[in-house]
Amino acid sequence: MPFTTEVYPGVNTVVPEETLGFTLNHTMLRIIDPEVSLAFYSKVLGMRVLRKLDFPEMKFSLYFLAKVDKSENVPEEIGARTQWTFSQRGILELTHNWGTEDDPSFKYHDGNADPKGFGHICFSVPDLAEAIRWFDANNVQYVKRPEQGKMKDVAFIKDPDGYWIEIVQASLLTQLGRA
Amino acid sequence: MPFTTEVYPGVNTVVPEETLGFTLNHTMLRIIDPEVSLAFYSKVLGMRVLRKLDFPEMKFSLYFLAKVDKSENVPEEIGARTQWTFSQRGILELTHNWGTEDDPSFKYHDGNADPKGFGHICFSVPDLAEAIRWFDANNVQYVKRPEQGKMKDVAFIKDPDGYWIEIVQASLLTQLGRA
Repeated sequence: MPFTTEVYPGVNTVVPEETLGFTLNHTMLRIIDPEVSLAFYSKVLGMRVLRKLDFPEMKFSLYFLAKVDKSENVPEEIGARTQWTFSQRGILELTHNWGTEDDPSFKYHDGNADPKGFGHICFSVPDLAEAIRWFDANNVQYVKRPEQGKMKDVAFIKDPDGYWIEIVQASLLTQLGRA
Repeated sequence: MPFTTEVYPGVNTVVPEETLGFTLNHTMLRIIDPEVSLAFYSKVLGMRVLRKLDFPEMKFSLYFLAKVDKSENVPEEIGARTQWTFSQRGILELTHNWGTEDDPSFKYHDGNADPKGFGHICFSVPDLAEAIRWFDANNVQYVKRPEQGKMKDVAFIKDPDGYWIEIVQASLLTQLGRA
């Protein structure tokens, strides 16, 4: 049963056959220190590391993480694991250019100050209040707590590089953006 | 059946109970002109518009898109649709600050020139060669065609704002990053 695509100027309502099977697989963010970022994403957000890919000749490593709580038939064999990783939705790719962790002045740009572009990634959570307690217990930094600003029920936390992560509880947002 | 998390310094191997149900929902990119971006994402990449949310008092609109080819029980009722949208993986949020489309000098930052940060989003496709033919037929701009550079079998295209979109065929990548 096809559903109703919302139609606005520019929207193509028929999905072209040539795009069948296209999957929004991952978002890539550069990180300064993998030890710090992996600790944050694997503990505070509960993600798992599916694959690390090393490119020694170009001096960088890539870490692919996913939030997979249950068995999703993740293959153990390394080639199959890589193929599986690139077939999913909602993967986070962290790029580590070797050596940045040893430069105390090095900093990445979060996209929300000039020059603007990328804004944030977002996690939805089953219970926003419980998630906030968990973040507080882990000394997570906030851009905005749920009770601050105009949009109640929406929080923004910061990852170790300062990238913004929106936190929402889907069931609280049914009225969002309605007149 | 739990799978083996790859372990590196910093990695927490036990998923904390407090994070169960956390879902990497979306990535937000600012766009200049929704008519142009919606045409690109709904035609060239075959995405569908799940929800548009308007915030007139702050003069911006948000478009939430997903690549959903088959029935995935997408609700029609607007509140349920919003809740569903915020519960999925692999959603793209496009933010339109009203009026940027009328300023010919306005430009967003793609994150890959200084100051660097966000790198790209990635679509995996069932057949890379066919996808390239489709992009060529649609006059898509490339950062890198598959045959260029060191990483064969990986392409990077540009969206209308210049953001990089990696294009991969998962089954071609089983040897990627192996010694």
